[in-house]
Amino acid sequence: MDGEANSLETIINNNLNGYDLEQYNRIYYGRRNHLEVPIKESSKDKSEEFDFDIIAYSFPAKIEQIRPARIVKIGVIQHSIVLPTDQPISLQKAAIFEKVKVIIETAGEEGVNILCLQELWNMPMFVATREKHPWCEFAESAENGPTTRFISELAAKYSMVIVSPILERDENHSDILWNTAVVISDNGNVIGKHRKNHVPRVGDFNESTYYMEGNTGHPVFATRYGKIAVNICFGRHHVLNWMMFGHNGAEIVFNPSATVGGDTGSEYMWNIEARNAAITNCYFTAAINRVGNERFKSEFTSGDGMPAHHSFGPFYGSSYICAPDGVRCPGLSRTRDGLLIGVLDLNLNRQVRDRTCYQMTQRLDLYVNSLSKVLDIDYKPQVVYEKRK
Amino acid sequence: MDGEANSLETIINNNLNGYDLEQYNRIYYGRRNHLEVPIKESSKDKSEEFDFDIIAYSFPAKIEQIRPARIVKIGVIQHSIVLPTDQPISLQKAAIFEKVKVIIETAGEEGVNILCLQELWNMPMFVATREKHPWCEFAESAENGPTTRFISELAAKYSMVIVSPILERDENHSDILWNTAVVISDNGNVIGKHRKNHVPRVGDFNESTYYMEGNTGHPVFATRYGKIAVNICFGRHHVLNWMMFGHNGAEIVFNPSATVGGDTGSEYMWNIEARNAAITNCYFTAAINRVGNERFKSEFTSGDGMPAHHSFGPFYGSSYICAPDGVRCPGLSRTRDGLLIGVLDLNLNRQVRDRTCYQMTQRLDLYVNSLSKVLDIDYKPQVVYEKRK
Repeated sequence: MDGEANSLETIINNNLNGYDLEQYNRIYYGRRNHLEVPIKESSKDKSEEFDFDIIAYSFPAKIEQIRPARIVKIGVIQHSIVLPTDQPISLQKAAIFEKVKVIIETAGEEGVNILCLQELWNMPMFVATREKHPWCEFAESAENGPTTRFISELAAKYSMVIVSPILERDENHSDILWNTAVVISDNGNVIGKHRKNHVPRVGDFNESTYYMEGNTGHPVFATRYGKIAVNICFGRHHVLNWMMFGHNGAEIVFNPSATVGGDTGSEYMWNIEARNAAITNCYFTAAINRVGNERFKSEFTSGDGMPAHHSFGPFYGSSYICAPDGVRCPGLSRTRDGLLIGVLDLNLNRQVRDRTCYQMTQRLDLYVNSLSKVLDIDYKPQVVYEKRK
Repeated sequence: MDGEANSLETIINNNLNGYDLEQYNRIYYGRRNHLEVPIKESSKDKSEEFDFDIIAYSFPAKIEQIRPARIVKIGVIQHSIVLPTDQPISLQKAAIFEKVKVIIETAGEEGVNILCLQELWNMPMFVATREKHPWCEFAESAENGPTTRFISELAAKYSMVIVSPILERDENHSDILWNTAVVISDNGNVIGKHRKNHVPRVGDFNESTYYMEGNTGHPVFATRYGKIAVNICFGRHHVLNWMMFGHNGAEIVFNPSATVGGDTGSEYMWNIEARNAAITNCYFTAAINRVGNERFKSEFTSGDGMPAHHSFGPFYGSSYICAPDGVRCPGLSRTRDGLLIGVLDLNLNRQVRDRTCYQMTQRLDLYVNSLSKVLDIDYKPQVVYEKRK
């Protein structure tokens, strides 16, 4: 597909085996074997018929005496858009609904408890264009727009919590827009929403043209299956964003994203940031990225001195799940739609915290004091100069 | 060597080539080619004679109109101890001095401007034993102990800033101990020192038995060649530690460490943490780890239910340098002594900051406010519950 490698995993598995593969897996992923979990035959059939990948991995914990295991099955979906972006908005959205519905249903039939979709999953990533018309028409009410109604129905049908990241139209506040993750319960109710805290101003990501930094703080959603939070896209570069979700009790933090590869893209950081967050905060993370190239009718420039062009991407997929000890599973493909399932024992979070003591050794009081000084406009950095003898 | 793979790089380079190797390098390291810098023939001869590796990589920046390039050559040294740990302390130390001196001299002859040694470089990592006698005798004055005098001489000889992490005896404060990095200027003067901020309590790392959390804040040392800071070992798991060095103006943050591999070790996180710090703070980082197994006369247990034993390790080396854009070079070996050199253009830091806007989008005021609330003993996490319809 456009000369794109399918995945880093494909490169490794096509070339390494035996001792080398085992050592590579240990050093890169954190375990010699990936603990793959079987998928139903019916799901495999669906994935073939509808041309998406499906794979599942297990993240077990030690057996405890006092607490029973807390096994939760999570899923993440990555996908491309369907219709050309100059088609009517309602048709574009309906075509994405139709495609993603099959993958959501497959997740439901696999018994997934908590499912997270990619950032702005029901639309192309039009922010590269800086155009307002017609793209802003993709925005909807978080509480009762057509996307939330569509997802609610599926959530209730499969008793599955679904995180649905969309462009929100806030009619109660002067029609403004937000980049918002709507969290829908296993009953189909909207539990709440979270608005993207950090908005990029880099390359084709002209998102600050469309919406502002979120005003919802760092909510953790107490779902039937566990406490979850959503760090939307660019927030993955911000360690304090991840940290606050941890302080609020998140057991799993999803990072729905739309980010691109190429020589100046973010791809080589993709394995770093959600994984560092899992390690330092001792919770599960799941990083989700869309796939494909997206073409727009009007040409646009990318702020990099290159000629105007029409295409945004490639979005490199590679969605993965990371455990609180930093062990991760292989990623989904760089180019194909996919459903990645993780069977997590949430007891692992506290077990890792007890082992590493990262939370107890973090000296938060020291940093609140230091960071509050940094805020001072006249802040004097702590710099030590040589005293010449 | 004990069935240890030489390095992840060896595994990759022995098995991949052509397109696959190029794509692997792009996705893992962040660039297709490693920009290796030539080493002098005399240095190669020394590395062969004295059995250590030496390699250098370049991290260039764009040419600017107003600022000239700020090229700085940094070096990091990883090494094993030399004598058995039951030999007299003065002999153990002298043997390490003798070995490391050759590598420091090679760095000096290569024109390295800033050199950083590994954590507690002049001693075995005896903290596994929990014994005080005789190990505490390795401690020295940071300002004028034999190690500082030894390093000062070499620093002045080669006009090279040297960071020397040692066990400090604080005679002015009741003889207490600290895990301290001494920063010595190109004139051989002690510019200052930094004491390890975060002390581990995990596995064989019984360091909290020996010394306390540092009281030196987050100093940045203004050297002739650039502003540097030292995040000692366990501090690499703490994102706020990295962040404060950034706020204080660090251009390069060294992470001298002593950390072990094996199935439950830190090896799979090694590529993550110093690299995430480089990305989110937009400065250079250098991660340094010792090599070898260290055997102690008294047996000790590791708090993991396994039988008492005598050996601590393997320390997996793999020292590397990461640029502010997250691009890293290959690491040194997992098992051999080595000198890794990086030719950095420090202009890259601000160029990356201008491109990514991570500092401007970090909303520090929001987090100072939120984190100060977390400190409250009665803190109520921001948790959203479902309102059943």
